[in-house]
Amino acid sequence: MPITLTVFEDSPDRGRGLARDMQVRWALEELGLAYAVRGVSFATMKGAEHLARQPFGQIPAFEEDGLTLFESGAIVLHLAERHPGLLPADPHARARALAWMFAAVSTIEPPIVEWAMARMLERDADWFAARQPMLEERVRTRLAQLAARLGERDWLEGGFTAADLLMISVLRRLERAPMLPEQPRLVAYIARGEARPAFQRAFAAQRALFEARARAND
Amino acid sequence: MPITLTVFEDSPDRGRGLARDMQVRWALEELGLAYAVRGVSFATMKGAEHLARQPFGQIPAFEEDGLTLFESGAIVLHLAERHPGLLPADPHARARALAWMFAAVSTIEPPIVEWAMARMLERDADWFAARQPMLEERVRTRLAQLAARLGERDWLEGGFTAADLLMISVLRRLERAPMLPEQPRLVAYIARGEARPAFQRAFAAQRALFEARARAND
Repeated sequence: MPITLTVFEDSPDRGRGLARDMQVRWALEELGLAYAVRGVSFATMKGAEHLARQPFGQIPAFEEDGLTLFESGAIVLHLAERHPGLLPADPHARARALAWMFAAVSTIEPPIVEWAMARMLERDADWFAARQPMLEERVRTRLAQLAARLGERDWLEGGFTAADLLMISVLRRLERAPMLPEQPRLVAYIARGEARPAFQRAFAAQRALFEARARAND
Repeated sequence: MPITLTVFEDSPDRGRGLARDMQVRWALEELGLAYAVRGVSFATMKGAEHLARQPFGQIPAFEEDGLTLFESGAIVLHLAERHPGLLPADPHARARALAWMFAAVSTIEPPIVEWAMARMLERDADWFAARQPMLEERVRTRLAQLAARLGERDWLEGGFTAADLLMISVLRRLERAPMLPEQPRLVAYIARGEARPAFQRAFAAQRALFEARARAND
């Protein structure tokens, strides 16, 4: 049975590859694995059928041979553990790469999501402008710490790993943020990730789905 | 060389076991592993020596045999991979336990931290009361989804695993929140975790450190 990913049938990012299926698509492309997709809408993703796959009514969900998984970080780790190419062989380097995977989704992503959600949901609130500097500063702090640790290296732990894949996917949400250009090392780091052929195939695949849907909606 | 954990020398939670060293201490106790602790203060944790161990200037950091790790989720996973007792043997069950580990730190924890941080840092702001219902609702949604999936089971995936250890640690931050009692299944789930002898040993260890410090400060 092929791998099946459940993704937005009509992604709210309008094909910019910022939804969390992108990191799983990217991992699948890096590993050379074929997959099918199933689309869900904002309505069907809160229904019982999807909640059985993804308990929080989000995307992506992953299915293969009777195994159903959720959490993009966990899905990428599952793939990286079973197929060579996305984790270092050395045990210490592998453990550090896993630490960076957790850092991407639990230390770097939350302040980015908090900043992005405020812009999406609280833009018309009286307090929006007053809170922005605080939210930007939380992101800025994490970016500076990440850039300091990355230093002059191309990737976080030796060659390109699942940690870079997750970290770059998370940082791409800042594509329109004023904080990102302040860290040229991170801008270059993201560009290195986006230049990978596997990234480009994954990006094209999610983009094609969005464009087909946009045409169908015309 | 023994395992060394870097922890708050004077925890801001005043010994309630809510700092993130608690989940690593708990895992070490479940696995029967001895460890030493090194304390850092709010000042020294932003210094170069600690940043070399923990790039974001947080606690805990983990050291063993030349390996330095950060991110409590990654440290718990590292320990669970190397010592039996905290991950299922069946590959599919193991993969699902890893998904719950990621869910704990990247889906359940962020709205809890956002709610807790607002109470800590924005309590005197004009908008505090107006934003509270939205922040509470974000937590409430996740708790309801988690309770629905947990159902009548004792633990998330078969017996007690590293996933429960992380999830219960994250949920404990809600000990004073009005949203938690609305989900009696989760209240009972937390109590099951806290009743484990390993939890109690870990809790007592961090508590003793706080109390010794409080006496020294008298």
